[in-house]
Amino acid sequence: MISWRKGATVRVANHEGRLVIVTADGAIDVERASGGRFGPAPMSAFDDWAAFRAWAETQSGTAAALDPSRLGPPVPSPRQIFAVGLNYVRHAAESGLPLPERPLVFTKFASALTGPFGEVHLPSASVDWEVELVVVVGREGRHVAAADAWGYVAGLTAGQDFSDREVQSAGSPPQFSLGKSFPGFAPIGPYLVSVDEFADPDDLRVTTTVDSEVKQDSRSSDLVFSVPYLVSYLSSIVTLLPGDLIFTGTPEGVGLGQTPPVYLRDGQVVQTTIETIGSMRHVMRASR
Amino acid sequence: MISWRKGATVRVANHEGRLVIVTADGAIDVERASGGRFGPAPMSAFDDWAAFRAWAETQSGTAAALDPSRLGPPVPSPRQIFAVGLNYVRHAAESGLPLPERPLVFTKFASALTGPFGEVHLPSASVDWEVELVVVVGREGRHVAAADAWGYVAGLTAGQDFSDREVQSAGSPPQFSLGKSFPGFAPIGPYLVSVDEFADPDDLRVTTTVDSEVKQDSRSSDLVFSVPYLVSYLSSIVTLLPGDLIFTGTPEGVGLGQTPPVYLRDGQVVQTTIETIGSMRHVMRASR
Repeated sequence: MISWRKGATVRVANHEGRLVIVTADGAIDVERASGGRFGPAPMSAFDDWAAFRAWAETQSGTAAALDPSRLGPPVPSPRQIFAVGLNYVRHAAESGLPLPERPLVFTKFASALTGPFGEVHLPSASVDWEVELVVVVGREGRHVAAADAWGYVAGLTAGQDFSDREVQSAGSPPQFSLGKSFPGFAPIGPYLVSVDEFADPDDLRVTTTVDSEVKQDSRSSDLVFSVPYLVSYLSSIVTLLPGDLIFTGTPEGVGLGQTPPVYLRDGQVVQTTIETIGSMRHVMRASR
Repeated sequence: MISWRKGATVRVANHEGRLVIVTADGAIDVERASGGRFGPAPMSAFDDWAAFRAWAETQSGTAAALDPSRLGPPVPSPRQIFAVGLNYVRHAAESGLPLPERPLVFTKFASALTGPFGEVHLPSASVDWEVELVVVVGREGRHVAAADAWGYVAGLTAGQDFSDREVQSAGSPPQFSLGKSFPGFAPIGPYLVSVDEFADPDDLRVTTTVDSEVKQDSRSSDLVFSVPYLVSYLSSIVTLLPGDLIFTGTPEGVGLGQTPPVYLRDGQVVQTTIETIGSMRHVMRASR
């Protein structure tokens, strides 16, 4: 883990619905520290991310204790959530599907977003795990060149793309979005970490453990379509908006890829970790 | 067309970014008429739709002239946009695809939303038309029974689900969302009309003309999955949120269904009409 480098990078979080800056010592409430210029809502960081970031980098005020159990999703109400399927070579193979020639893009509906720690209800016996690096868009973009793409990214966070395989694969042609959007199926966090905190944002270790057993362990350098490619490709079709999320796809090691498939059960603990960003932890609950 | 019935129903619109009530005489600015209780933003109607509607029904104040060319989408920033594929029997047949057993659900990304009158740029030579009845959700819902579904609907509006067939059908399995989300590909309007203005909200005539030639002319009573079914089904998986949109699918008569397929060209005029709601009109432009 690279530690907090004051004056160079920003980690932000959603603490009980309030925008906070996270330091090694705890959390700085943004509304109070900025005299109301930014905050209190977490989405206010995206009204002008460049201005917010420039201000946030200078902060070294007193931090209050941060209670992880009170963290919500760092981006609670994005206007658009893009999700990419089959974006790691070995995951496409284990899914029995050809490698896409262009990114395969669907959505996770926003009501599925949840914070980095808590319980997730299992609506069926076919819910799978998928660790994903999540890109947070920092400024509006259309026809962005791949070489310029990182300049449109506010930062990165960790995501779990929980997926009900039965609902996801229903229909002809199956549309993935709904089966990936039950409540709690889109946890993100624990922090949004600004791009330059990463030694190499194109090469991050991504892992999922279930009850401490490693299920997925790969690196984002194995992405078929890299973050710059995805930003460029998406913006060739749609207008990217500040606060938008891009779930970049999952590596091999999902339950569907095992013989026979293995899915999540009541009481299991899913830990989702991305290098430099941190870990999320969710307890599965079978009943509603 | 059923005319405005003061005291019983509400039609609202987005006039230059401000929430207005539409009457036979023009538009009443909601923020001014309510002394700031509602408005000015169109999305403010969904903070408490029931309260807004109860207030709006009583209004008979002076209406200002309404300039149709200044109308934006009546719901400019929904948190979720659901879209349903192959939801009319004859449209599934002309698409060469089986009738779904459950609704086939994808999204139109929100940056594609636009107002009811204006130009739409054609990114390719394979852009098709799809008139759709659009449901606007009025209150949060989860596990809504079909019998109760209309109570969760604020009203209805007209939509065009412009679709780039080449982008829509790429990939395996093809994911429809991106090819339906170029800028301007999701016009809605001209008004959001509250449910009880309709003699029968489950049986509305829906039409598309291209250069005055009728291309689609059907009735929403032919939906495979009705509005109550869709509200109930979606809410069995996701949480419906106030202001969410549901594009309910298109009837037969799209360009893809012709032999050979016929797509939109520079200068053509697409008119989209739904009974009781009204008409939208868009001029196609080939270049950006």
